[in-house]
Amino acid sequence: MPKVSPNQAAATLARRLDRLARVSDERGATTRTFMSPAMRRACSLVGAWMRGAGLSVRVDRLGNLIGRTRAPRRGARTLLMGSHLDTVRDAGRFDGALGVLLPIAALEVLRARGVALPFAVEVVGFSEEEGVRFSSAYLGSKGYAGLLGRRDLGLRDRDGISVAQVLAGARGRFSRPGPAHGRDELIGYLEAHIEQGPVLGELGLAAGVVSAISGQTRARVAFGGRAGHAGTTPMAMRRDALAGAAEFVVAAEAFASSRPPLVATVGRISAHPGAANVIAGAAELSLDVRHPVDAGRRAAFRGLREEGRRIAKRRRLSFSMDVTQDNGSVPCSRDLTALLASCVRGRLGRCVALASGAGHDGVMISRLAPVAMLFVRCREGISHHPDEFVAQRDLDAALRITVDFLARLASRFPR
Amino acid sequence: MPKVSPNQAAATLARRLDRLARVSDERGATTRTFMSPAMRRACSLVGAWMRGAGLSVRVDRLGNLIGRTRAPRRGARTLLMGSHLDTVRDAGRFDGALGVLLPIAALEVLRARGVALPFAVEVVGFSEEEGVRFSSAYLGSKGYAGLLGRRDLGLRDRDGISVAQVLAGARGRFSRPGPAHGRDELIGYLEAHIEQGPVLGELGLAAGVVSAISGQTRARVAFGGRAGHAGTTPMAMRRDALAGAAEFVVAAEAFASSRPPLVATVGRISAHPGAANVIAGAAELSLDVRHPVDAGRRAAFRGLREEGRRIAKRRRLSFSMDVTQDNGSVPCSRDLTALLASCVRGRLGRCVALASGAGHDGVMISRLAPVAMLFVRCREGISHHPDEFVAQRDLDAALRITVDFLARLASRFPR
Repeated sequence: MPKVSPNQAAATLARRLDRLARVSDERGATTRTFMSPAMRRACSLVGAWMRGAGLSVRVDRLGNLIGRTRAPRRGARTLLMGSHLDTVRDAGRFDGALGVLLPIAALEVLRARGVALPFAVEVVGFSEEEGVRFSSAYLGSKGYAGLLGRRDLGLRDRDGISVAQVLAGARGRFSRPGPAHGRDELIGYLEAHIEQGPVLGELGLAAGVVSAISGQTRARVAFGGRAGHAGTTPMAMRRDALAGAAEFVVAAEAFASSRPPLVATVGRISAHPGAANVIAGAAELSLDVRHPVDAGRRAAFRGLREEGRRIAKRRRLSFSMDVTQDNGSVPCSRDLTALLASCVRGRLGRCVALASGAGHDGVMISRLAPVAMLFVRCREGISHHPDEFVAQRDLDAALRITVDFLARLASRFPR
Repeated sequence: MPKVSPNQAAATLARRLDRLARVSDERGATTRTFMSPAMRRACSLVGAWMRGAGLSVRVDRLGNLIGRTRAPRRGARTLLMGSHLDTVRDAGRFDGALGVLLPIAALEVLRARGVALPFAVEVVGFSEEEGVRFSSAYLGSKGYAGLLGRRDLGLRDRDGISVAQVLAGARGRFSRPGPAHGRDELIGYLEAHIEQGPVLGELGLAAGVVSAISGQTRARVAFGGRAGHAGTTPMAMRRDALAGAAEFVVAAEAFASSRPPLVATVGRISAHPGAANVIAGAAELSLDVRHPVDAGRRAAFRGLREEGRRIAKRRRLSFSMDVTQDNGSVPCSRDLTALLASCVRGRLGRCVALASGAGHDGVMISRLAPVAMLFVRCREGISHHPDEFVAQRDLDAALRITVDFLARLASRFPR
């Protein structure tokens, strides 16, 4: 077997990130959504790289891509590593993909060195984390952790197709799976991810560890009014659902702006019937609320609901705000995070611990195993955008830290 | 030929309105857009009714359905009658359809009475008036009047297909048509339409005449910002295009509300990339501005553009507001309107003249011929909505007024 230096492996990693970004459901943009044709192609491509790294590969019933090293002995425990393979619309190259391809590269380096780990490693490319198709995130890791509920399966996409229908596929029927592993089988879960924020960049650090993942609540907000003719209905006689929704968008922005570190985002809006010359009879929008402290998030959500009710009442509109997703803050494992931090310090001289404003698959996997997360610096904190960028030297550093983590974790096990 | 009483003809008219409403591109709703499959079916259905009334029928290159009586002599002039066959999304039964089916019914009554008119009548079902597909109205009557410009042909729908491509169809090439008639050939144009407002209802009148059609300006408004992660971008660092667009919607509503009889409507809005967890990098909306006085409309449009610029500047967003349609106020013909008003008075005892806040095909046809319009009462002024309703007794009255108009117009011609 040829030697693979971390530098060579990091260069391969960068090429693979470029290659994977071209696997898309949209021409000229990177877009992969739950169970889409591009997701199937991504599994096949990444699966081939996994096999090249000596992993045995399968895709589970939820579309999660799973590559496993051979267990060193019967009853050996497993370290989970990975992230998600789906993306937002018109995404960058690193969000999710980095955390799937980095452990593959790390295992290639160790294999080339002839290092045999005293535990199995399972690298997972989760099938759904971004919540694009069903306005509900983590479907892949939630299913992997055995947490997929009847409510999740009933969610419908814009075409009215349910999660259950998508998962049943040609088989026609889908039954909820149990967890992929018992807690006892697992050592923990390590996820590498771009920071998606500006802190590491400001501190001049290539990487850091995550202390906790902020909680987030997502809701579908709807205003109902009365459709009417745009030319003949006097302003005073209107019950314009879109005007109400627009007022809510502005109010939500002002609400969050006055309460940092709260963030509230409306990323999607639509009006019905949606014609230039018809007053909207209905309007719907997405709301995403995040706060590092659970109580802060819950209070904000209640406050925003009150804002919506006030707006609707004054305008004689109907109003509803249905939670589509609600995740509490998830603290990372002290033990694994301390080990990871020592690896970061070993390579970078120091290590900072950040709270993650973004949600990650670790939120779901924390129900199955202790979680540690490595944040990698990304330029200007830009993510969910084609300009998302990680420098080659930072990929290098992240790979060395990951290799170190595996080696140090291995050294804890009796030979 | 059997006698057809106005009562019988009005009952047939009501049945036909119901039947035509079921010709739709959407299941469970009435939706017919420019050159859609449902529009073709509508032409075939209404064309059959036209033939039954003794008209010779054709569809012109713009998709307009044209039914013509035989000219009483060489060089006889033509009275145009009609309205449009397309609809808004999820429309009612009367907007447009009434003005196409009413003259067919009137001609059937006259034919049964054995009345031979001293002029030809051309009943037109225009193919496009609502502006749904291309955000630009009157494509059918504009083409009929020979006013379709290069700019109109270049307009594109949501799928990127241009008007020219749609009109070229299988032939592959479309050249702009001239006017369907010379001015000298035409006596005038009579259009019957529901009022789409509450005035006739408040006055307890089945019908009235139109003094002028209000001018209207439509624009496509766009805000550009920076897409970003909804969880990790602090509120203060955002350039949220949708928040800017929402502020504009609220500002436009307030602007118009404080300046009656101005109306301004945003009926359509979209955010890009349009995901719940991504700050919108771009947002687009439709703006529709109407005022009975041209100067009032122009001043309002300038004021709204200033509002948009102010909002964009404060938020560090880009802003554009492109006019997609701009029509001045159109006065109706004094002569034909006086004749029509005398028919209304003859049936209802009195007649009111209203300005039309809604645009109509008469706007375009006024460039070709003098225009008169009959407004028919609709319940609560509701239109552009499935609840749009005209009582049977009002259909009766409108039919009798139309028959009277044709008879009185005929009496002006020497035998």
